[in-house]
Amino acid sequence: MIRTRLTELLGIQYPVVSAPMGAVAGGRLASAVTAAGGLGLVGVSYGDPAFVEREMPLAAEGGGVWGAGCVMFTFDDRPGLWDRVLDFAPPVVALSFGDDSQVRRYVRQARDAGSHVAVQVHDLGQAVTAVDAGATMVIAQGAEAGGHHKERASLPLIPAVVDRVGDAVPVIAAGGVCDGRGLAACLALGADGVMLGTRFVATDESLASPGTVRVLLRAGAADTVVTRVFDIVRGIPWDHRYRARAVANDFTRRWTGREAELSARRAELESSWSRAVEEDDVTQRQMLAGEVVDLVSDVRPAGAVVRDIVGEAMAVLHRLSSGETATNLIHAGES
Amino acid sequence: MIRTRLTELLGIQYPVVSAPMGAVAGGRLASAVTAAGGLGLVGVSYGDPAFVEREMPLAAEGGGVWGAGCVMFTFDDRPGLWDRVLDFAPPVVALSFGDDSQVRRYVRQARDAGSHVAVQVHDLGQAVTAVDAGATMVIAQGAEAGGHHKERASLPLIPAVVDRVGDAVPVIAAGGVCDGRGLAACLALGADGVMLGTRFVATDESLASPGTVRVLLRAGAADTVVTRVFDIVRGIPWDHRYRARAVANDFTRRWTGREAELSARRAELESSWSRAVEEDDVTQRQMLAGEVVDLVSDVRPAGAVVRDIVGEAMAVLHRLSSGETATNLIHAGES
Ligand SMILES: Cc1cc2nc3c(=O)[nH]c(=O)nc-3n(C[C@H](O)[C@H](O)[C@H](O)COP(=O)(O)O)c2cc1C
Ligand SMILES: Cc1cc2nc3c(=O)[nH]c(=O)nc-3n(C[C@H](O)[C@H](O)[C@H](O)COP(=O)(O)O)c2cc1C
Repeated sequence: MIRTRLTELLGIQYPVVSAPMGAVAGGRLASAVTAAGGLGLVGVSYGDPAFVEREMPLAAEGGGVWGAGCVMFTFDDRPGLWDRVLDFAPPVVALSFGDDSQVRRYVRQARDAGSHVAVQVHDLGQAVTAVDAGATMVIAQGAEAGGHHKERASLPLIPAVVDRVGDAVPVIAAGGVCDGRGLAACLALGADGVMLGTRFVATDESLASPGTVRVLLRAGAADTVVTRVFDIVRGIPWDHRYRARAVANDFTRRWTGREAELSARRAELESSWSRAVEEDDVTQRQMLAGEVVDLVSDVRPAGAVVRDIVGEAMAVLHRLSSGETATNLIHAGES
Repeated sequence: MIRTRLTELLGIQYPVVSAPMGAVAGGRLASAVTAAGGLGLVGVSYGDPAFVEREMPLAAEGGGVWGAGCVMFTFDDRPGLWDRVLDFAPPVVALSFGDDSQVRRYVRQARDAGSHVAVQVHDLGQAVTAVDAGATMVIAQGAEAGGHHKERASLPLIPAVVDRVGDAVPVIAAGGVCDGRGLAACLALGADGVMLGTRFVATDESLASPGTVRVLLRAGAADTVVTRVFDIVRGIPWDHRYRARAVANDFTRRWTGREAELSARRAELESSWSRAVEEDDVTQRQMLAGEVVDLVSDVRPAGAVVRDIVGEAMAVLHRLSSGETATNLIHAGES
């Protein structure tokens, strides 16, 4: 058991959260993480109605403390779908990527529906806005993360967010964590838990395509790029300050630096790109992954991932404080 | 006392290193850090001969385990100055920013002179090259660092470097560490020590200009930019893959996006820019600082910084493993 303010608030065993990854984190992944004692989140993301109707019931049936993650700016013109998400009464709603007024509105509605609300933030100003809006947790996400992010790195961002809002709410660290060393490190930085995305892509319960998983297992951080090209071809109106980290492939190499042309030719290109995605063509499809991809080399059940992270974190903390010699031959005692 | 493979190798008390910051880390700063039980490095950097003759004797007189840091690519056409650095018999030589053949050559020469050699690396390939070349330590530096860096972030880079070369040599984490939380986190990630730059800029012994220190105390990470404009106006032929993190000012705002024009007009602009630097004009001068600038809010003696980092790291590790409740109410015990 690891008790932090996060585990206390939610009544869960371990301060380990699986990220709400669009099209990847379905109900089975969320349930498996929750069943293992963590917090599993369904990646509702941009809100495909079929995905919501298929995956949220799976998570809800699993029971326990699970949640749903929504990308705020994509919900404004579909209030019905947002209501539908809240209908499932997710114990936790995770909100990401919205302007200040969206943060205020979605936080209030999710809290009114009875959910705990975690807001993903990328700098100190956003952390303050989230807490002022009534968030009951913040997720501090660094730029090493897979998926969309801003420019701050986790190691210095986490303690700065903790200093700014940690008195008010638990802080969950996201971006760059893959194993028990990362959990132990984030707890040392003052975080109350960690959220992992990339690591959970390569699990039995992930909905990632076989091609994506195969590429991830071989890729290293040096193979990732930060790009807008997939947002452009998908026609999703992302704020340009957020870009996505993905494994580089022929598509990113072809269009990087030619984003304006890609925008202009989208109508012509979109259907052949979508066909390539359906065929799981890894030279073309988007494969979001963070810098921790260096450390991901196997596909495991999500529950085993949670248990291994917790076990390793406890071993690391024990070793660091007990004076046992080990990998890094550490002894911390009276000086 | 905190014992790691780094403290064992060097015979120092604490695994805390002050970075070899050009024009900022002189002999007094290095001596103060060494006297406090850490490893103090003089920022020989690009090798100004007057700086070498003035600052290296100060560090050498201080005694103990101190070192000198050199930027490799700037030494190739000045072999006499490199020999002069080695004449002072620094117990440690830190080498940064060189291609593979420079790494091999400078590591061999520094080892032949009897020094321990730390090579700063920014990705996994460079870590392997450094160890193959005979480095006795590697410094894994993330992009949140002040000064020049590549694109990888510390939190995922450190464990990946540890997995790759940690069996062979101690790994020192650099970039994004400011306090005891950062030291504890890096030890949890498997590092054997930490190197801090930005934090030591704001110390009594720092040679940073009064204007620079004043700006740093007020600035946050959001005020930093990653830029080449100062390299251009200074006429230093940096490999374009390395860019520098500095506090944004009128000079960066004026020239960002117009680097080619700045290059072309350098002859005309350089002397007025140099005059502004001499006058400590913070709207124009380079003020290197990392994302941890969020957490730097006072000027203290360097020795006190070392002691506070160590004391806080030990308190954090103790709290995390002992089951005491504290800031993040953590209890790690049998599950
Ligand atoms: C495949 C993938 C899909 C993601 N999709 C979303 C998403 O739809 N909404 C969101 O808020 N974050 C998304 N993220 C970001 C995660 O929520 C999380 O911040 C990130 O994965 C943490 O960094 P890590 O990848 O280093 O673990 C995604 C990440 C990945 C890897
Ligand atoms: C003011 C300043 C000057 C620096 N100068 C150098 C240098 O001359 N040579 C070098 O290898 N690194 C230099 N660095 C980088 C440091 O060696 C170190 O990697 C970095 O400061 C660590 O990140 P931190 O600033 O987050 O502590 C400098 C950093 C700063 C802040």
